[in-house]
Amino acid sequence: MQNFVFHNPTKILFGKNTVPLIGAETVLFGKRVLLVYGTGSIKKRGLYDQIVQSLHAAAAIITEHGGVQPNPLLSHVHKGIKLARENNCDVVCAVGGGSVIDEAKAICAGTPVQHDVWKFFTGKKSVKNPLPLTTVLTLAASGSEMNSGMVITNDATSQKFGFGNKQLFPKTSILDPTITFSVPADYTAYGAIDAISHVLECYFTTTDPYTPVQDRLMEGIVMNAIESCNRVLANPDDYHARADLMWTASLALNGLTSSGLGKVGFPMHMIEHSLSAFYNVPHGAGLSAVIPGWMRFNAKLQPDRFAQFATRVFDKRTGSIEEKATQGIEALGNWFREVKSPTSITALNIPGTDIPKIAANAMTLAKVWRMRDYSEEKIEAILDGCL
Amino acid sequence: MQNFVFHNPTKILFGKNTVPLIGAETVLFGKRVLLVYGTGSIKKRGLYDQIVQSLHAAAAIITEHGGVQPNPLLSHVHKGIKLARENNCDVVCAVGGGSVIDEAKAICAGTPVQHDVWKFFTGKKSVKNPLPLTTVLTLAASGSEMNSGMVITNDATSQKFGFGNKQLFPKTSILDPTITFSVPADYTAYGAIDAISHVLECYFTTTDPYTPVQDRLMEGIVMNAIESCNRVLANPDDYHARADLMWTASLALNGLTSSGLGKVGFPMHMIEHSLSAFYNVPHGAGLSAVIPGWMRFNAKLQPDRFAQFATRVFDKRTGSIEEKATQGIEALGNWFREVKSPTSITALNIPGTDIPKIAANAMTLAKVWRMRDYSEEKIEAILDGCL
Repeated sequence: MQNFVFHNPTKILFGKNTVPLIGAETVLFGKRVLLVYGTGSIKKRGLYDQIVQSLHAAAAIITEHGGVQPNPLLSHVHKGIKLARENNCDVVCAVGGGSVIDEAKAICAGTPVQHDVWKFFTGKKSVKNPLPLTTVLTLAASGSEMNSGMVITNDATSQKFGFGNKQLFPKTSILDPTITFSVPADYTAYGAIDAISHVLECYFTTTDPYTPVQDRLMEGIVMNAIESCNRVLANPDDYHARADLMWTASLALNGLTSSGLGKVGFPMHMIEHSLSAFYNVPHGAGLSAVIPGWMRFNAKLQPDRFAQFATRVFDKRTGSIEEKATQGIEALGNWFREVKSPTSITALNIPGTDIPKIAANAMTLAKVWRMRDYSEEKIEAILDGCL
Repeated sequence: MQNFVFHNPTKILFGKNTVPLIGAETVLFGKRVLLVYGTGSIKKRGLYDQIVQSLHAAAAIITEHGGVQPNPLLSHVHKGIKLARENNCDVVCAVGGGSVIDEAKAICAGTPVQHDVWKFFTGKKSVKNPLPLTTVLTLAASGSEMNSGMVITNDATSQKFGFGNKQLFPKTSILDPTITFSVPADYTAYGAIDAISHVLECYFTTTDPYTPVQDRLMEGIVMNAIESCNRVLANPDDYHARADLMWTASLALNGLTSSGLGKVGFPMHMIEHSLSAFYNVPHGAGLSAVIPGWMRFNAKLQPDRFAQFATRVFDKRTGSIEEKATQGIEALGNWFREVKSPTSITALNIPGTDIPKIAANAMTLAKVWRMRDYSEEKIEAILDGCL
């Protein structure tokens, strides 16, 4: 186990009827609130009214910044920063899924500084005195509600980059599973796949050979993400299944599983980000198109690790190490197919001839993330295996 | 899943060479430090000198409060409170295992209030503005380094009571596994058993029938506590095994496993506390004497739950539900015997004729903890099964 610091100060309010608490939780940090949300679905479902009512009851002065896109854009972050500055906002309240919360974090970081917010993403500047953030989560997927990271797409350069900073943990996040009843089957599955991918990234990229308790936690989270997603798809209004999936996704990327693993990479995300940047595919769909190919490529390098995964998560107990490793990857791919998520880039209608372009784009992120074990050639080879 | 609040703000600094950070972490909360420790082993091992040096380097003014006993006593807490008041201490720094950290928490809570600190334990008063706490952990067991609870024995009344309050999470806890190299085999095992018991209490007392992700985490923690303890006993200087056990014990009782379970009880602790109060047995040894009997009693009431535990933790896959449940309890008892921990109160030389006295004592705690499903008769029946 490697040395680590674990410090996750986010307060989680989980369960039914928790949304009305958002006003009081938010004005703890000031009255002038930038309310960040997406492209309108929260208005259709009545959630927007509930939030505004709660904020007004707490005497908040609201500036609205709606219209956040899936794969949120830097140009829209800029608009949010401008609004926050013009209205002297004290605090940001994000209502949405990972995209909305990620954009809100970028606004929190970018508002108080003179330079462009993108310099945080390229590693050229460090976060200082960001605005505080509260959130109401509407999708079980990214874990952004309980971590300090975010991903933004620079629409000028087609770069989808991510970064994190310990000052950017939300202060309070409200997780009401009933809000997710209306998430359709495809996005429910993409969300579960996103959560699983966060675990797989850590599980398969740690170079520490001795992480037993983290392994157990990660294996449990993957098993449970699959099981709870299946239950939700069978019955979208099953409160307990929605709750289970929602909390599982938060636990998948809140620092718990990665503490002690040393430096881990996010190579599947690195490649997927290029798919999203070019083709605007849903993040979870892009991930499920990349994961099996990435796993097949890497199982050759560390078959023992992949065999442990197969045995513990999918109960694969027969055959050689290599055979078990393969069975585990196949089992995960089969589940992706069961929940109707693509398992190849071909299924996303991305032609093989685009692979060099995708690999070149992914390499720009590999450099920022200092993933020195990746080259264009290697990414192309992985993508060839994702056709 | 039940509604819950999860908010664990403790900062964990984990790994080799982290002890010298204690001075800087502590003086963040003030210069006048009450240094709380046990009965001298930290002086034998050089840890004391390291701590004092780090505190002095951070310009701390130290008031010492050593001599904390295993099963820490209220009378000694009173002495610590007196010292903290007389020296206007700003912050408490605890160096030790669960007993030392628990006593330090009681001192933090009791110093700023007019009434006796015991009123917190009997539920008659609420915590207000406690002193902040930092810790350096020396034993993997109680989880006190990352939670807000504590247990103190009132030596005037022979009551071992516990309570918790969200203001009493340590601010920072330092976990250096090398410090635990010198923990002998018996106390290593008792520590692992304590950690396991914290999980079992939650796992078997939740009345919520739908806690899948928590179940997976709890099962993983129990499996790993057993595995890491075995590795430590085979090689006490195995850094990675010590690290794994240390972090596992913290995760076993930091709120992670119990969030969403609703009200859980700690009946095994409730009964064990009476053993410790009367016979001063080590906490982990008392627990292992009670756990199998308590489990046999309760497996009849919820065999499915015990069968799940047996299947997932001990790979028991054959036989009826009831048979699997029994096999799981036997497997855990066998492991207790392997690590030379008692599996009956007889093995602790406690005569059966004392059972009514123990049950009557335990009931006083059952009332404070509002465990309405326990009576003297029921506790006696459980203890009869622990002979």
